[in-house]
Amino acid sequence: MNGAESLVRTLADSGVDVCFANPGTSEMHFVAALDRLDLIYCVLALQENVATGAADAYARMTGQPAATLLHLGPGFGNGLANVHNAKKARVPMVNIVGEHATYHIEYDAPLTSDIQGIVGPVSDYVVTTKTAEDVGADTAKAVAKAKTWPGKIATLILPADAAWNETSYVGVPLLADPPEKVIPADVEAVAKALKSGKKAVMFMSGAVLYGEGLEKAGKVAAATGATLLAQTSNRRIDRGAGRVAVNKLPYPIDHALETLKDYEVVILLGANEPVGFFAYPNKPSRLSPDGAEILNLAGPNQNTLEALDMLIDALGAQDAEPELVEAEPAPDVSGLSGPITPEIISLAFRANMPADAIVVDESITTGRAFFPDSRAAPPHTWLQNTGGAIGVGMPYAVGAAMACPDRRVIVLQSDGSGMYCNQALWTMAREGLDVTVLIFSNRAYRILEGEMKGVGVDKMGHVAEGLFGLNQPEIDWVSLAKGMGVEATRVDDAADLSPAIADALSREGPYLIEIVF
Amino acid sequence: MNGAESLVRTLADSGVDVCFANPGTSEMHFVAALDRLDLIYCVLALQENVATGAADAYARMTGQPAATLLHLGPGFGNGLANVHNAKKARVPMVNIVGEHATYHIEYDAPLTSDIQGIVGPVSDYVVTTKTAEDVGADTAKAVAKAKTWPGKIATLILPADAAWNETSYVGVPLLADPPEKVIPADVEAVAKALKSGKKAVMFMSGAVLYGEGLEKAGKVAAATGATLLAQTSNRRIDRGAGRVAVNKLPYPIDHALETLKDYEVVILLGANEPVGFFAYPNKPSRLSPDGAEILNLAGPNQNTLEALDMLIDALGAQDAEPELVEAEPAPDVSGLSGPITPEIISLAFRANMPADAIVVDESITTGRAFFPDSRAAPPHTWLQNTGGAIGVGMPYAVGAAMACPDRRVIVLQSDGSGMYCNQALWTMAREGLDVTVLIFSNRAYRILEGEMKGVGVDKMGHVAEGLFGLNQPEIDWVSLAKGMGVEATRVDDAADLSPAIADALSREGPYLIEIVF
Repeated sequence: MNGAESLVRTLADSGVDVCFANPGTSEMHFVAALDRLDLIYCVLALQENVATGAADAYARMTGQPAATLLHLGPGFGNGLANVHNAKKARVPMVNIVGEHATYHIEYDAPLTSDIQGIVGPVSDYVVTTKTAEDVGADTAKAVAKAKTWPGKIATLILPADAAWNETSYVGVPLLADPPEKVIPADVEAVAKALKSGKKAVMFMSGAVLYGEGLEKAGKVAAATGATLLAQTSNRRIDRGAGRVAVNKLPYPIDHALETLKDYEVVILLGANEPVGFFAYPNKPSRLSPDGAEILNLAGPNQNTLEALDMLIDALGAQDAEPELVEAEPAPDVSGLSGPITPEIISLAFRANMPADAIVVDESITTGRAFFPDSRAAPPHTWLQNTGGAIGVGMPYAVGAAMACPDRRVIVLQSDGSGMYCNQALWTMAREGLDVTVLIFSNRAYRILEGEMKGVGVDKMGHVAEGLFGLNQPEIDWVSLAKGMGVEATRVDDAADLSPAIADALSREGPYLIEIVF
Repeated sequence: MNGAESLVRTLADSGVDVCFANPGTSEMHFVAALDRLDLIYCVLALQENVATGAADAYARMTGQPAATLLHLGPGFGNGLANVHNAKKARVPMVNIVGEHATYHIEYDAPLTSDIQGIVGPVSDYVVTTKTAEDVGADTAKAVAKAKTWPGKIATLILPADAAWNETSYVGVPLLADPPEKVIPADVEAVAKALKSGKKAVMFMSGAVLYGEGLEKAGKVAAATGATLLAQTSNRRIDRGAGRVAVNKLPYPIDHALETLKDYEVVILLGANEPVGFFAYPNKPSRLSPDGAEILNLAGPNQNTLEALDMLIDALGAQDAEPELVEAEPAPDVSGLSGPITPEIISLAFRANMPADAIVVDESITTGRAFFPDSRAAPPHTWLQNTGGAIGVGMPYAVGAAMACPDRRVIVLQSDGSGMYCNQALWTMAREGLDVTVLIFSNRAYRILEGEMKGVGVDKMGHVAEGLFGLNQPEIDWVSLAKGMGVEATRVDDAADLSPAIADALSREGPYLIEIVF
């Protein structure tokens, strides 16, 4: 057994069953070991942000880390933005980064770089394996680190000689460290504030937005009248008919300030205090109202589910009945026609939402109505870009569809951000994933027009127009998709939109609709 | 004047006239200043490796740094691989990386990251501007650092408030530090070795491979019989009829060892000693023969052109006549037909090479004959991937065409690496660049099949086949190009290849040929 085989066996024994990969020479022994052992399913990505974005979404949907396989420092660099996003999502992820053989590094060959330096800023844990003998223990520890609540980015740097030399050790799976303890006094303080009659909001993110966490939060809201509010971007929200509804803090800073302005108590649960996505001249960074009491119930590294249990006990809210969203019928879209608008897209999307869909939302400006408009749709899961580095939509769809092959994945994809990782379309076709991609082809980085005003620049000149416009030439998404093996159609009349979405959702495998408006 | 305007004025005063950009909110004031002042031409890239790759090639062709404009840590991360390649090319480059307003960083908003940590490993010089008052001096210093011989990567991190606050300072352009001195004793030792009658090779890279450097090297070769050999990958080689010919060290390690095995003296000029691109089990990292004398004439940071002058003096070779390549007629390709092979592609390419072309070579396995076969073609310039991070071909073409609008750019592009930065096609169309892209559509990461054997793995299983194959689905480059506004055609019969290339070269603007074989 060589080090590479020890790595594969240890990963598999530790519960890692999928690897999103773009390997190179230094990783060939790992590839060979994957082949011999056949314990881990490998998915090829043609650009590394596809691999890292897919691993992120896979973890969001399964709770378990996927592995990525990346080629030295620059290969990790290509996937760095989506590792950044994954770190902000607080998901488990295990990155395997190949390195030159240890003795070769000093010669500064072309691909030599400071890999530890490159991976460090976006990893929670980094280990460079020194020898084949160390691979097993290092890998087991990396996976355990990744699984540390609520989820960490663990990066293992694997020198080629550590992969090809012999070893007799396979790593023994390790237990992850437990989450940080919830502090009873914090729970008491929150319970007291909630009983005080002050207007309170629970500002939430992480595991309390899906599964049992959501129901627990709903009990607290039902018992106290507190508002449940998710942060602007979250790794996962389960929602729709029959579930507890949680709104999100709006992205535009004026809307965010307006949303929060009347609260006297801000309770943090799995989230840090609300802050602006960006700073704007003469606007605050901190968004809670002046004088509001800010209470930490449980931070992201604490056990937010346990915190809710403790709070429910403190409130005596065990029997409170969470308010659940009542199903509403799909809107009638039969009369739509004419030019398409964001509002019409939202209607047509909502009208066709199937049960149990996974919605990947990278719709930026086009999609601001999608979330509220789909509040009472059939139950579904909502995935967002948590780190602000655009280009996640289609990679997330790959990972979500790999994680949940029985669920339909719908990508709400703005055109500018979609171009960053268009290569994800190819992987969708290769794996035959049931993904419906809606491209919002407004042919601009529309958000930047607003941001420019937001930072105090009122006049757009030709440079700004040149840097924000995607209209010269127009991107032809139907051809682009076809180029990567994904069938596609274009819609530019509202009358055709809902039928096109219905058709796409009925198909097996990936399908793209370019919505021109 | 705000800090952003000070930045633009200082860049322009320091000779930076092009900016390859993908801006975001934190860079809006910089965009507004670019607009108001109109001193720097801005080119939009839809993914940041396009911007950084283009800036690299622009510098290769002009000798001057371009600026890049990138959006915080993840935006730089998206362009990191091509900054890595640029650092290995030793070109000047000035990266402007936006950052949150200084007071906003502590709140850990979604896009907050350790930008200094991310940019550091691939930058030679990093400065984070603190206030608007500092922008001018920091920028002038960054440009001067970038221009330090032979070319450095300077990265300036610009907080949003340093851009939007007022200042009265514009930076005064600074002189770059001079190159490190050549050591006369080193020159003497090389002259002595060259006169000794021992079999000698000058192992070269950098400025000695183009312009006057090449002619000086040719004088040394003519006077002493030394072999001129470039390293495997170089930022630029001027070559073809009427020029001094320089071969390159082959990439495959066995060929490289064979090429060097008989030399008794290895003279380093702008290059480090020859080493393997990767390490392979039971093969050496250092490629010079055991016992060969390795002499440093001038390292990459020394003035290699001055070193050649000193060596010519020491050899008394002022009047030596460099051996120049005699023009050879283009091969007759009229009889070609049937399946296309790499050899046929090389013939058809050579047959159509126009004078003064800039050839960007990212042909990987397909292109191993292109360089030798074009030795006696009309004079042209050859650009290569210097850092081994694939995906440079089409971005380099953007930068080279921006730098030299009167020259035809031809990209020799393998399919796997081409997919990394396919977004460059859109920028070619937008700017109307005269670029001819030849895609070698063998539908595989063919090099990895060889590398797998090279590291001692003989058997490819289904995992390796899955990770190396680009055939499921086949990438349709004609559709892909059309999707980004670039006209294209597909050729799969040898009879059609040369006419297709001739047609493409006669067109204005970009054109792509997918060569299926």
